[in-house]
Amino acid sequence: MGETASRLRVAVDCMGGDRAPREVVAGALAAARALDVDLLLVGVPDAVGPLIPAEARAGAPAGLAVEVVASGPAVPEGAPPLASLRAMPDASMAVTMRQVRHGRAEAAVSAGSTGPTLLAAVRELGLIEGVRRACVGRQILGIHPETFLIDLGPTMDCEPQHLVEFAVIGTTYMRVFCGIAEPTVALLSNGREPGKGNRVVKQAADLLARSGLRFIGLLEGHHFVAGQANVVVCDGFVGNVVLKTVEGLGREIAAWIERELQDALPPGRLAEVTGRLIEWTNPIDLHGSLPLLGVRGHVVMAHGASDRHAIAAAVGQAVQAVRGRFVETLRAALADTRARLTRPVQAG
Amino acid sequence: MGETASRLRVAVDCMGGDRAPREVVAGALAAARALDVDLLLVGVPDAVGPLIPAEARAGAPAGLAVEVVASGPAVPEGAPPLASLRAMPDASMAVTMRQVRHGRAEAAVSAGSTGPTLLAAVRELGLIEGVRRACVGRQILGIHPETFLIDLGPTMDCEPQHLVEFAVIGTTYMRVFCGIAEPTVALLSNGREPGKGNRVVKQAADLLARSGLRFIGLLEGHHFVAGQANVVVCDGFVGNVVLKTVEGLGREIAAWIERELQDALPPGRLAEVTGRLIEWTNPIDLHGSLPLLGVRGHVVMAHGASDRHAIAAAVGQAVQAVRGRFVETLRAALADTRARLTRPVQAG
Repeated sequence: MGETASRLRVAVDCMGGDRAPREVVAGALAAARALDVDLLLVGVPDAVGPLIPAEARAGAPAGLAVEVVASGPAVPEGAPPLASLRAMPDASMAVTMRQVRHGRAEAAVSAGSTGPTLLAAVRELGLIEGVRRACVGRQILGIHPETFLIDLGPTMDCEPQHLVEFAVIGTTYMRVFCGIAEPTVALLSNGREPGKGNRVVKQAADLLARSGLRFIGLLEGHHFVAGQANVVVCDGFVGNVVLKTVEGLGREIAAWIERELQDALPPGRLAEVTGRLIEWTNPIDLHGSLPLLGVRGHVVMAHGASDRHAIAAAVGQAVQAVRGRFVETLRAALADTRARLTRPVQAG
Repeated sequence: MGETASRLRVAVDCMGGDRAPREVVAGALAAARALDVDLLLVGVPDAVGPLIPAEARAGAPAGLAVEVVASGPAVPEGAPPLASLRAMPDASMAVTMRQVRHGRAEAAVSAGSTGPTLLAAVRELGLIEGVRRACVGRQILGIHPETFLIDLGPTMDCEPQHLVEFAVIGTTYMRVFCGIAEPTVALLSNGREPGKGNRVVKQAADLLARSGLRFIGLLEGHHFVAGQANVVVCDGFVGNVVLKTVEGLGREIAAWIERELQDALPPGRLAEVTGRLIEWTNPIDLHGSLPLLGVRGHVVMAHGASDRHAIAAAVGQAVQAVRGRFVETLRAALADTRARLTRPVQAG
């Protein structure tokens, strides 16, 4: 075993995603070579095996170890997550997460459909102590890559304590993935003055003020799009509405500029301008891999439309999570905040 | 009395707004002449009187009747609304609303600061039966003037029944102000499929399905910015965040285009493009007058920065509300929806 056993190993779901397995395998191999990590390629052996060049199997040229782990197909897009995972215990996303659970890999990557992939991760790996639900956050403004919006995900009805968790998770994310030592944290609200906000936001503001995080108060929508905090916190309903509004408005404006300026700009310049505008407002659609936040393991969900470059980027993000000790750091940060917010019931 | 007594009369708060009283009086007089209505100019007599040309006082040339109604100054921007109105019973916005309450005017217009103006309207006029709080809605996308977002206003924590009220109010608004006979209604949500949404949205969807309104289901943020319904309903917290996000993103993108294309477009063309972009995303800031929705009287709040043209537009909107019988139509629509949603407790 020796040196090979201590190399970092990533499990990749080769069956999930619109362009699986070919693009997934190609992207995973490229990333593994570039990042010097080993791979478990999870999938239907007859589909995955032929895509692996002989020299990769043999570990040449760079000592790269690639192993195929047999699974069934992915849960198809649109299928009910829980029922499907129960009916397909060997679904590719479930087997991929299981590699992390059993210590055979340090991280998992899947471009499978969101619902089943997220659920497979939670079922196989569980949640970090003190986290109530897995969540999803992201820099959704290409123009402000140091501003992270959380939650975009499944938690629709939040209590104040959920928003505090999101703040801790976002802070840890920006530390590990963006190298920002002390990220500023704000609550998205309808006004900046203390006392603004709905019931949950007001109570969360009181908690965040004594959380030990770098809480700078309430921000409005236009402050968020101007990138005025590193971590902007809201419930999953609001986050999803804001995300889709930003994406949609970017596309509407790009389409308008295309019509409006087609006589005034050379075609190449016009395409460059509209392309950058889309990139600024739709970074998830274009590059989107999302670390799944709050689960007990390093899991990255890649966009369903990922090509080999997007898969390679997702594997890169998984490796960054492991090397930055994301899960361990988050566990410690959550425990620290919990301790600050919990007063001892009795002193003696 | 005869013909003069049956002419429509609008009370205008001449002290509220950054450019009061001069621009307010000028705008009100221009609108009254153009629309053939009479005016009550409410304000400090020494400030307002000298601004009225002698021929307007005398009713010439078009039979226009203008009367000054004495009041104190406006509640200043930033002052606490309730305490200020109690301390200043003759504040200009309160006296303006009182003209409608006492039947001396059919509508009221004020460019005073939002909190005190809204509160003065509610205190003097009361709410329409079945309305729990006054609310504010608006076409916030210049690019889609037939899409109305409600609530943008003060109701932060909503119950499902509030969202149904907003839907009825928005439907009535689009009928009266935009001439759309059967406006489509949607709930803003995190997904389009039935069952998406937070608790309140899910319950509101069930109610709206049997409300008699033209309910088309759930819409996401990008469907809203694409103008896919006439009335898009959300709570005041979400509406405010969406409004500010759209406004901010429009300004961010316009600033970027200005930098990006300054070498590629003639200055005039560049200014026209960025100007239209701001106009599409910031229509309230630019033209903003807002009918106050749910109060028992026709009240239009003009933007604090209004010049004479904006004031004239606000008076025009007030006249449109009266002529379209907005309050009466809304009262009937609310009663109709209430009847549909209320089952009789006992049949015999």
